[in-house]
Amino acid sequence: MNIVLLEPGDFVAENRVRLHGRRRDHIAKILGAAAGDELRVGIINIGVGIGRIEHLGGDTVELTVSLHGQPPPSLPLRLILALPRPKILNRTIAAAASMGIREIHLINSWRVEKSYWKSPRLSAENLRMQSILGLEQAGDTMLPAIHLHRLFTPFVRDELPRLIQPSIALLAHPGASTPLARGMAGPIILAIGPEGGFIEREVSTFRDIGFDIVSFGPRILRVETALAFLVGRLF
Amino acid sequence: MNIVLLEPGDFVAENRVRLHGRRRDHIAKILGAAAGDELRVGIINIGVGIGRIEHLGGDTVELTVSLHGQPPPSLPLRLILALPRPKILNRTIAAAASMGIREIHLINSWRVEKSYWKSPRLSAENLRMQSILGLEQAGDTMLPAIHLHRLFTPFVRDELPRLIQPSIALLAHPGASTPLARGMAGPIILAIGPEGGFIEREVSTFRDIGFDIVSFGPRILRVETALAFLVGRLF
Repeated sequence: MNIVLLEPGDFVAENRVRLHGRRRDHIAKILGAAAGDELRVGIINIGVGIGRIEHLGGDTVELTVSLHGQPPPSLPLRLILALPRPKILNRTIAAAASMGIREIHLINSWRVEKSYWKSPRLSAENLRMQSILGLEQAGDTMLPAIHLHRLFTPFVRDELPRLIQPSIALLAHPGASTPLARGMAGPIILAIGPEGGFIEREVSTFRDIGFDIVSFGPRILRVETALAFLVGRLF
Repeated sequence: MNIVLLEPGDFVAENRVRLHGRRRDHIAKILGAAAGDELRVGIINIGVGIGRIEHLGGDTVELTVSLHGQPPPSLPLRLILALPRPKILNRTIAAAASMGIREIHLINSWRVEKSYWKSPRLSAENLRMQSILGLEQAGDTMLPAIHLHRLFTPFVRDELPRLIQPSIALLAHPGASTPLARGMAGPIILAIGPEGGFIEREVSTFRDIGFDIVSFGPRILRVETALAFLVGRLF
């Protein structure tokens, strides 16, 4: 936790928050902080600043908060991601949030197992929590918007063509013949398939609406590794 | 598992292996393969090829193996990594192996908790298993060499100066003023610090022996995210 993230409900006065549970325990036990210490704080979807510990009790901590800056810049990248298996969904969302991705579309695909869509990890509450963990890691405050699309074709055919304007649209696909460029300017919309990749018919659908089908090498990487690799490559 | 990795002890005849346990279960249950099917196989530290299922029993599977190629090229990158917390060590090793890193030095640092060095995950057996999981993901066969250095100064001062020749030596450090270059040719030796970064005295030691201290942006990323991001950026 490289920043303590605050929400409107934490405020007990104009510049004062009272925290309990996970954040209080982190401040007391992991950081080993005490009254008078100052910590990096941020207000979710707003700015960053300093929190001064006024009182650290057995269950709560109270901070006075002063904002003085902006969070790190967002990445001009929107992510279209075939729903990963539940085991790796959490850390993929946290990694995406930590890198500054602000819009994530989790989509269905032929090779996404139907059971993945029943995972309790897809609750809005969990997706928000994983995003917060990523932001806390990165020192950011801006939550990504996460959208679920349980049907491939209606999303890709009807919604995606509007979303891709005016971005460069890329589908990272094993075995594609065009190598991925590097260091692009301008906004990008990036699609990443499931384990095993999108099937050929799905790839064609992406191609038909304007996606470039690009390869990033002969290796098949896990989605959270591939995502960070691609972000490092593209920006 | 995008390739079934074989070891010398698996061979029961010149071109025939018998597998049980995890690999047999993966072939039978996850891949749903049957006698006559062909699978991608590789022999560890050797090449890749095809295995044909000759017999699939309740406990074992037997394949005839023919090699026909090389694994994907390795990355010309040696990694110096402050020992991560045990919880993320496994997937960091697997991610490094999956990206083709062939030499990993896990080192001590002021901010590495002493207890991490007592983790059973540091056993040679576990490090090998995590490497294999990464190779199986990537379709690779070449195990990384993983070295443990429980003392910072003797390693960095006495061993590292020899290791860095003839590489470009980079230390990725939060707050560094030089931005990381991209798309480098030639071999690189890359050092990544612990959570919270190397302390100033450690950074100076790296600088003194020829490391460039470089930043990769205002965000603090988890080690496995940072590693994949850096590999995508550098190569």
